[in-house]
Amino acid sequence: MAEEREAISMASSLPPPPQVPMELHAENRSKLIRSLREHLTSSSRPLKGFGGEEKTRYCTDHVELFRQESYFAYLFGVKEPGFYGAIDISNGKSILFAPRLPADYAVWLGEIKQLSYFKEMYMVNMVCYTDEIVEVLRTHHGGSEKPLLFLLYGLNTDSNNFSKPAELKEMEKFETDLSTLHPILTECRIIKSDLELSLIQYANDISSEAHVEVMRKTRAGMKEYQLESIFLHHIYMYGGCRHCSYTCICATGENSSILHYGHAAAPNDRTLKDGDMALLDMGAEYNFYGSDITCSFPVNGKFTSDQRLIYYAVLKAHDAVISAMKPGVSWLDMHKLAERTILESLKIGGIIIGDVDDMMVERIGAVFMPHGLGHFLGIDTHDPGGYTKEMERPKEPGLRSLRTIRELQEGMVITVEPGCYFIDALLVPAMENPNTSKFFCHKEIARFKSFGGVRIESDVHVTSNGAENLTKCPRETWEIEAVMAGASWPLLDKSSIHSENNGRSQSDGTQ
Amino acid sequence: MAEEREAISMASSLPPPPQVPMELHAENRSKLIRSLREHLTSSSRPLKGFGGEEKTRYCTDHVELFRQESYFAYLFGVKEPGFYGAIDISNGKSILFAPRLPADYAVWLGEIKQLSYFKEMYMVNMVCYTDEIVEVLRTHHGGSEKPLLFLLYGLNTDSNNFSKPAELKEMEKFETDLSTLHPILTECRIIKSDLELSLIQYANDISSEAHVEVMRKTRAGMKEYQLESIFLHHIYMYGGCRHCSYTCICATGENSSILHYGHAAAPNDRTLKDGDMALLDMGAEYNFYGSDITCSFPVNGKFTSDQRLIYYAVLKAHDAVISAMKPGVSWLDMHKLAERTILESLKIGGIIIGDVDDMMVERIGAVFMPHGLGHFLGIDTHDPGGYTKEMERPKEPGLRSLRTIRELQEGMVITVEPGCYFIDALLVPAMENPNTSKFFCHKEIARFKSFGGVRIESDVHVTSNGAENLTKCPRETWEIEAVMAGASWPLLDKSSIHSENNGRSQSDGTQ
Repeated sequence: MAEEREAISMASSLPPPPQVPMELHAENRSKLIRSLREHLTSSSRPLKGFGGEEKTRYCTDHVELFRQESYFAYLFGVKEPGFYGAIDISNGKSILFAPRLPADYAVWLGEIKQLSYFKEMYMVNMVCYTDEIVEVLRTHHGGSEKPLLFLLYGLNTDSNNFSKPAELKEMEKFETDLSTLHPILTECRIIKSDLELSLIQYANDISSEAHVEVMRKTRAGMKEYQLESIFLHHIYMYGGCRHCSYTCICATGENSSILHYGHAAAPNDRTLKDGDMALLDMGAEYNFYGSDITCSFPVNGKFTSDQRLIYYAVLKAHDAVISAMKPGVSWLDMHKLAERTILESLKIGGIIIGDVDDMMVERIGAVFMPHGLGHFLGIDTHDPGGYTKEMERPKEPGLRSLRTIRELQEGMVITVEPGCYFIDALLVPAMENPNTSKFFCHKEIARFKSFGGVRIESDVHVTSNGAENLTKCPRETWEIEAVMAGASWPLLDKSSIHSENNGRSQSDGTQ
Repeated sequence: MAEEREAISMASSLPPPPQVPMELHAENRSKLIRSLREHLTSSSRPLKGFGGEEKTRYCTDHVELFRQESYFAYLFGVKEPGFYGAIDISNGKSILFAPRLPADYAVWLGEIKQLSYFKEMYMVNMVCYTDEIVEVLRTHHGGSEKPLLFLLYGLNTDSNNFSKPAELKEMEKFETDLSTLHPILTECRIIKSDLELSLIQYANDISSEAHVEVMRKTRAGMKEYQLESIFLHHIYMYGGCRHCSYTCICATGENSSILHYGHAAAPNDRTLKDGDMALLDMGAEYNFYGSDITCSFPVNGKFTSDQRLIYYAVLKAHDAVISAMKPGVSWLDMHKLAERTILESLKIGGIIIGDVDDMMVERIGAVFMPHGLGHFLGIDTHDPGGYTKEMERPKEPGLRSLRTIRELQEGMVITVEPGCYFIDALLVPAMENPNTSKFFCHKEIARFKSFGGVRIESDVHVTSNGAENLTKCPRETWEIEAVMAGASWPLLDKSSIHSENNGRSQSDGTQ
């Protein structure tokens, strides 16, 4: 056992990946049932969802690595493809339906597990085969009338796609309701339980450590994808995380102003240069629950004064927002607080001029930060529920990119990710526009032409009276410089390093 | 430049990832045109394909990392999603159609490239926007009659799925042919050009090196997924390979008899034990072209006599097949040669008894090796074209799993992957069957109950008069033991290590 532990944790200070208690998903089901019962007058009807299926690449037999559909994962925690699930609202009993596997599955894909295995593994009341769904749901229901199925169908407000409701062969034997389940289940997912929080914390811990590992190994001359590879290796090797929450964004130099860099058409393939900033947005997923973390730092390990100026504009916004967060606070206000904080720093730094209130009216903040301040995080990176049906999405630049405008509630987990970028496609029109041109110091801005941008992103849990940052990366410039120079993390003696490096208050050029 | 080179290759003996000449794809197009012209009487008509689109995870905005559709990649090498392509058969001119990107793409996803960029990058004659397809194809065609489009539609004989032909809004303005293109283009893909071979060789080189790295780091107490992580990191960090050809199979102990282990329901999560065999089937993909390599070795670095017995049964089959391969040889015969070689070794080892010819008739080989001997390899791991319309798939156990039964031709690349497994689901019925029970030494086989299996897989290029193995992994037991004990690879002085370890001829227990 000692040997095993050692082998797993050899380059990580964290304990081995935790066992996941299936109570987590059982609790999620109970919460849904409570919410539905509050909503419904009659409650003697089953509800139903279905899990994902494996997909092949185009017409080939290349099977993509399967990752469970998120609503299904929330309720059942099932990692295998091809399952269906139902919960009886009247008595709270849950049923899983497993695919009936052909005999040669045992030869090609592994042991064919008994239904009792899944019953125990996933802590449900009953497991049957998917070809028995209609019969079981009808028998289970008992009465003579058609059972009513609440199926999952609704809009994802980030993608504008609709979830696909479960399909049964003999749907005419049931009554179906497509509108009730989705908003209620989505609301359940917004408030995280302690067991959910502990997984999000774990994903944050291993990802924070991996970000530090990347910082330490970054050198001019490397390729951006090598930073991605170091991150992926660390979270999998030492954290057991096979999936990331999203495709890694490893942007350096001017690429760091491309908000969703890293995709197939911009595949993290630039060579790092001395003097570049790096903006790395990468997060591990563990047992479906994710993390979403961005670190920005100079490739050569030492901030220039310009880099420090922009970096602290963003860090002050990041810190100001987290300090202000608590239940009842509007996320729209937090976004504006971040914008205002950044604009004030840019003004002190001589990059923009004029009255910050006027800038807010003219939406100058959105020129430097066109994306929203943050989004819910959970089983999806952009966890659903940002907008209810009643809420209207803002129309103004910057604000319209917000993935939520809700009031904060205890138990929410939301990313705080202010950024400041020099994006020609936004700066040039704003500097040419007669209404907004006056705010920009054209000469100073020219210096930042190939700067790219800075983003600092943490995952934050809203507590009863404030907020807790789940992300533990070096954030102060002296912390980053110390870690990149080889210091351990967390720093052993912060005060000495702080004073040696003159720290933030003396050197960020904003005081 | 020296610094860059060092940063990239610091833990690899290979040069940095090669630049890919777009002539490769231009040559592929020329080859197709020649083939089509031979086939068609009238040749003044364009043909057309379309590339893949990005996919999101279920209803969310989680975008899966895009990988181009393989036929489209073959002809155009385009890495971006959303493209269409056409080739005029009469004059050989190629046209790409790029998606017209919205202005805010520049903010979120990167520079909006000019059409001239793609024209130069992909070496085509013309680039237009996808919304211009109908107009361009009609103008281009000139004549008054409807242009005839050859669209890609046909069966993938591994998946039994059909490729999806390109869809246009005004398809009624064209005549279409769905049957001509697919078989001809598939035949083109079967015979590899030198430029294609060099990429397959590169994918093999970096993957072979990564397998060696994994062998060196394997220890009892580790998790299977840690071996996967080491492999993935090596091919990406040092080889620039962001994709694998397929999901890694990291099977140890009895899992090594599960042929396609490693998927989401069997996710490489077992802890390695002293005394286990490991069977690792992992291959990198570079610029669409793949590799497919399996190494089998003892987790503790030393073969037991039983492990050596099974290992050499498989290695002899692997070597015998490669020695026999040349143009004109039937792949069905190669499969039978592998079966016979394995059965002979098992007989010498005392695991089975009786006449090997009789065993071949009773298909005993398929009890130990239920899969086919190998498959074409290229842009797809299971490259298409294994069966033409005229060929009938064998029905006997083992043989029916063959992904091709064709005669070898110069320029084919095919995997040679014999294996020997102890699979209860096959062994138990065969040992109970009155016709086949007599062949098995029940007592000896009991010893192998939890052994799992051995597979040795190399990627082999059929030359004009033989075959060339593109895979460069340690294969002899003494080579594996030496590398796992820390020797460099390739071994510096093979002969001394060979004799020190007594080598194969003295110690494999089969002579």
